[in-house]
Amino acid sequence: MISVGIVGAAGYMGGEVLRVLLDHPEVEIAWLTSRQGGAVADVHPNLFGLDLTLIGPSEITRCDVAFLALPTQATLAIVDKLLAWGTRIIDLGSTFRLKDRNEWERVYSQPHSHWALVAESVYGLTELHREQIAAARIIANPGCFSSAAILAMAPLVAAGKVDLGTIVIDGLSGTTGAGAELARPAHHAEIGNNLVPYNVVDHRHSYEIEQELSLLAESQVLVHFTPTYVPITRGILAICHAFPQQKTSREQLLELYRDFYRDQEFVLVVDRAREPGVSWQYKPYPWVSAVNGTNYCQIGIDYDQRRNTVVVFSVLDNVGKGGAQVGIENMNIMFGLDRGLGLRRRGLHPG
Amino acid sequence: MISVGIVGAAGYMGGEVLRVLLDHPEVEIAWLTSRQGGAVADVHPNLFGLDLTLIGPSEITRCDVAFLALPTQATLAIVDKLLAWGTRIIDLGSTFRLKDRNEWERVYSQPHSHWALVAESVYGLTELHREQIAAARIIANPGCFSSAAILAMAPLVAAGKVDLGTIVIDGLSGTTGAGAELARPAHHAEIGNNLVPYNVVDHRHSYEIEQELSLLAESQVLVHFTPTYVPITRGILAICHAFPQQKTSREQLLELYRDFYRDQEFVLVVDRAREPGVSWQYKPYPWVSAVNGTNYCQIGIDYDQRRNTVVVFSVLDNVGKGGAQVGIENMNIMFGLDRGLGLRRRGLHPG
Amino acid sequence: MISVGIVGAAGYMGGEVLRVLLDHPEVEIAWLTSRQGGAVADVHPNLFGLDLTLIGPSEITRCDVAFLALPTQATLAIVDKLLAWGTRIIDLGSTFRLKDRNEWERVYSQPHSHWALVAESVYGLTELHREQIAAARIIANPGCFSSAAILAMAPLVAAGKVDLGTIVIDGLSGTTGAGAELARPAHHAEIGNNLVPYNVVDHRHSYEIEQELSLLAESQVLVHFTPTYVPITRGILAICHAFPQQKTSREQLLELYRDFYRDQEFVLVVDRAREPGVSWQYKPYPWVSAVNGTNYCQIGIDYDQRRNTVVVFSVLDNVGKGGAQVGIENMNIMFGLDRGLGLRRRGLHPG
Amino acid sequence: MISVGIVGAAGYMGGEVLRVLLDHPEVEIAWLTSRQGGAVADVHPNLFGLDLTLIGPSEITRCDVAFLALPTQATLAIVDKLLAWGTRIIDLGSTFRLKDRNEWERVYSQPHSHWALVAESVYGLTELHREQIAAARIIANPGCFSSAAILAMAPLVAAGKVDLGTIVIDGLSGTTGAGAELARPAHHAEIGNNLVPYNVVDHRHSYEIEQELSLLAESQVLVHFTPTYVPITRGILAICHAFPQQKTSREQLLELYRDFYRDQEFVLVVDRAREPGVSWQYKPYPWVSAVNGTNYCQIGIDYDQRRNTVVVFSVLDNVGKGGAQVGIENMNIMFGLDRGLGLRRRGLHPG
Repeated sequence: MISVGIVGAAGYMGGEVLRVLLDHPEVEIAWLTSRQGGAVADVHPNLFGLDLTLIGPSEITRCDVAFLALPTQATLAIVDKLLAWGTRIIDLGSTFRLKDRNEWERVYSQPHSHWALVAESVYGLTELHREQIAAARIIANPGCFSSAAILAMAPLVAAGKVDLGTIVIDGLSGTTGAGAELARPAHHAEIGNNLVPYNVVDHRHSYEIEQELSLLAESQVLVHFTPTYVPITRGILAICHAFPQQKTSREQLLELYRDFYRDQEFVLVVDRAREPGVSWQYKPYPWVSAVNGTNYCQIGIDYDQRRNTVVVFSVLDNVGKGGAQVGIENMNIMFGLDRGLGLRRRGLHPG
Repeated sequence: MISVGIVGAAGYMGGEVLRVLLDHPEVEIAWLTSRQGGAVADVHPNLFGLDLTLIGPSEITRCDVAFLALPTQATLAIVDKLLAWGTRIIDLGSTFRLKDRNEWERVYSQPHSHWALVAESVYGLTELHREQIAAARIIANPGCFSSAAILAMAPLVAAGKVDLGTIVIDGLSGTTGAGAELARPAHHAEIGNNLVPYNVVDHRHSYEIEQELSLLAESQVLVHFTPTYVPITRGILAICHAFPQQKTSREQLLELYRDFYRDQEFVLVVDRAREPGVSWQYKPYPWVSAVNGTNYCQIGIDYDQRRNTVVVFSVLDNVGKGGAQVGIENMNIMFGLDRGLGLRRRGLHPG
Repeated sequence: MISVGIVGAAGYMGGEVLRVLLDHPEVEIAWLTSRQGGAVADVHPNLFGLDLTLIGPSEITRCDVAFLALPTQATLAIVDKLLAWGTRIIDLGSTFRLKDRNEWERVYSQPHSHWALVAESVYGLTELHREQIAAARIIANPGCFSSAAILAMAPLVAAGKVDLGTIVIDGLSGTTGAGAELARPAHHAEIGNNLVPYNVVDHRHSYEIEQELSLLAESQVLVHFTPTYVPITRGILAICHAFPQQKTSREQLLELYRDFYRDQEFVLVVDRAREPGVSWQYKPYPWVSAVNGTNYCQIGIDYDQRRNTVVVFSVLDNVGKGGAQVGIENMNIMFGLDRGLGLRRRGLHPG
Repeated sequence: MISVGIVGAAGYMGGEVLRVLLDHPEVEIAWLTSRQGGAVADVHPNLFGLDLTLIGPSEITRCDVAFLALPTQATLAIVDKLLAWGTRIIDLGSTFRLKDRNEWERVYSQPHSHWALVAESVYGLTELHREQIAAARIIANPGCFSSAAILAMAPLVAAGKVDLGTIVIDGLSGTTGAGAELARPAHHAEIGNNLVPYNVVDHRHSYEIEQELSLLAESQVLVHFTPTYVPITRGILAICHAFPQQKTSREQLLELYRDFYRDQEFVLVVDRAREPGVSWQYKPYPWVSAVNGTNYCQIGIDYDQRRNTVVVFSVLDNVGKGGAQVGIENMNIMFGLDRGLGLRRRGLHPG
């Protein structure tokens, strides 16, 4: 059994790691921390009836792997102790995601005291870095928008099929993406019938997306990424637009994507056909409600012959495949387990 | 392995039976039917990527147990064949729920051609009829509102603590309760910002609730039940009001409920305390979002000292504990398995 | 022209008073206050482009009438100054609503320093107290749930048709009912797919409802009132249950209600018939989405012949007819204007 | 008084024309048609209590202006009669929107029997064609997405500031955009927690947008437009991305937009500043909830200095400024009235 600690278990990400690990056959929970302490069920009502208690961060003990759901300074304050114990780290925050120190310090508006650890850490997108993940001490779990956007664009960019300077991505996110902390635009009365664009240009996740796509392209990629909160609680829809170098077809694009993700069980390429004579085409595209609560990403594609543009849709649960569950997938890989252990249950319909 | 067939697998109930059974360690799916046929993923996008096909009802073969999610006449047309094969039946519809023939025929506005089967069938509320369920050939799976209401009121009624003629129950239901068939008040533009009372008096589920509570009370119980659709997709909140025979307290009531459900792992009595000095008390009551997608029912209670009234809240997923998942719990009991096999995963937070 | 001041114009109630008065032909806005000051459009984005500024409460000057949307202590701190100016007061808060001092002080957990003013103030439910409103210096604008519940039950109670000790009312409210202040159960991620019962027994509005219904009954009425937040932003549905003294019919009840509200243009009795042969009856009942943004209350009724119970539904916008707009109706009456001036625009469909 | 007829008054567009005209001081309603007939309040519950009846299309009589909310063939079947009466026409459908016949017939998959009328009709976007509207017999009221997109991009395109081949527009729409007709992806259970891309490439509205922007640019413009339904009932957010020819700034862009719309009271350029030190910037961008139910369009702009891209947001109510209310604005202009008569009431906050 792998002993697991969760630092920051009162938030949405930490709570989801816990929920899924409770069903994981190879894991035992060592401890759960939160500054305020108390019973887990007081903050996560879905876990009512289970005897689980939050301890203070100072009370933690050695475990095999720790999930960290903390702001950067809190992460850096704890990481030396964990590594000294030989505990492997899956960081759900943004502390280790960017490989360019100047960029990180500018984007996150603070100095980084442990930059040497960034060099050895691995960006935990399992579809791209599986081998390095297996050997890593520290995983930088991807941002939720980043996972959706990178998975959507990776096949096109890696194949050199599209212009690398004009990729446009609109990211629509459920309100769990804003976290558990109360805020005006996440107040139900304000967003219940609303759509809330925020941090519209130069969003922090842009840099992760550009970093990973540039690696695939072996050339600098720019993404024009715009996030908007929408009145669902969970889930991301990334709508990605790209300008192909030459004319193509929906069928060719689907083939490219199916090939790219052939051995990736958690990325599903939705290739349902258009329905002839139907004026309202929706079946060829993925639905975010179908993957909420899961580790799955569904991707759909379309192509405008007349204007030569590609649209790629990807959907995932920002707390699931976009966060906690891909963290568990990383853990499975790090410990030599079946990659999908505990992660294969499908989402609800209707979700 | 138990071989399972699902008749009517394209609807929400049938789809949920399928989703949960895909993870059940002792089950193999024999077949899935739907009049229109086709790929399961075309109607249930959460199951995209799984190679599952819907067959016509005439193509079914023998299996150990069949889940039926059909209107009554279609159920009655298939039931003889299944029983002749020795297939046990879990009926998710209303064909076998009421034990009074006149009442059934009046409430459902049709004659019942197989009344003898009603006599042997067992009302599948596992908390009340577990022993008979184990031996049954036919299970009448309870209505979604009925489960919520009966579980909420059973301890009070069985203990003879409240007046049996003035029980008032408001049932709030997500729109999956209206089924997959398109209808004006389930059109998103109409109900997205709305609350829709319907079939306000003499609702069909009233009779199930009265039947089961009267059995417990050993006396005739009347319930004044009013259903309203609310703009969530899944889940029921039953708000139940009763007038006690004599003064009591919240603590005494919680004790009564904890005792009643002590050995019932899927009913959780929420007994969080009121928070002193807080003007907005919500923690003592259950949240439906916490049980969606699951087989759990959470129950909360409060007592108005000044006016001597009790309020009991119960929450469950109309498609889960209120339908498909309790059906699987019935199956587990019928086949001598651990009652909760495949049914213990907790819901999402946030849901 | 009537000069109007709004104290507390940054909240939802104050903002709605302002929005509607901007279209009122007999009103000029004197001033708008809020502790934080600033541009109105920064807090009310619907008013972007209008040159309106919030001033501090100390900067106010004499006006003909002031709307107060404040906590009690802030109200009491300003009321002497206003009355000394001869300014009439429409209090949108709870400071003047209850006529029993002991009850008020217990329910609101504080002493009341201006009790003499309560005696002269008038409970501003226009359908019940129109003549006294015309002459009042101080209007106690009703609570939102209270308006919905009293309007629903007044005809039955006044006619002595139902038992006065067993009235049960479930109040479902949109999240604006919780106000603009951030709070956990109003966080979109928590309530977006959820139903949140709160302050379940002995709610403050119970006392207003009992006070007004007892006046009508000329006898003590008890109401068993339970509030629940639902994921819509505006609007209340009150579901009211009562036990008649003797058998009656839906048609007789509709007649009673039509009579009672014959001269009340803002209360509409929904008397659409049941549709023969339709298994899903919703047209006989009112929809809250149809009255949001307005000063209208719609009321529907049904009767269970078999069990002899009445269900009455009333719907209104908690910020409109349940708050700001009825306040303006009070103002119209106080100043001898057409009662419905500026208040007759219908709501949206779909809402 | 202008006598007005509404053909197709049972739909969402026709109902909104009616609702707003009921408050219009210079209008009398001549008649309202719908195939099924009956009382208006049966289909529009917001109008309960008003004595309004739907007549069959064959019963119409002469009026000054008719609003048509019909499919093309029904429109063409009635238009000769109306014009013979001297009735002016405001067509809320798509029959007269495109000036290129081949394009229209291909995009709408049918022949057009009255092409000569297209030549004289005026595209009813009041901000661009006000003078021609004043003189027109036939107004082609713009599509909802088209209005949002054209208003968002017009200043940039007219000023020649951006590349005309790489404009990307994501259009998010409330479900009223799908109309009153029942459909699977508009079923609440399916879309209540979901985001539904549909008709993803080559959407019909693309051609209107390209037509109008090309006129402004005096050069061919291509737009890459992708629509998605989101779980709100009303409102559109168009997120528009463009690549400037040279570096610019948010302030310069705001200046350009304020100039362009200086005399256009229904287009408001949101120029709230970013808040220093705030990590969650949302105030600089418009909220769709703030304009629902109105004739206003709010536009916000941002600029990514690092990547040299512009994002423009526009929000409007698809049924209001994106449909029925701009139709009334067209009527006001056609009849020499104050352009904004009956149209200036602000939306709700919260909406």
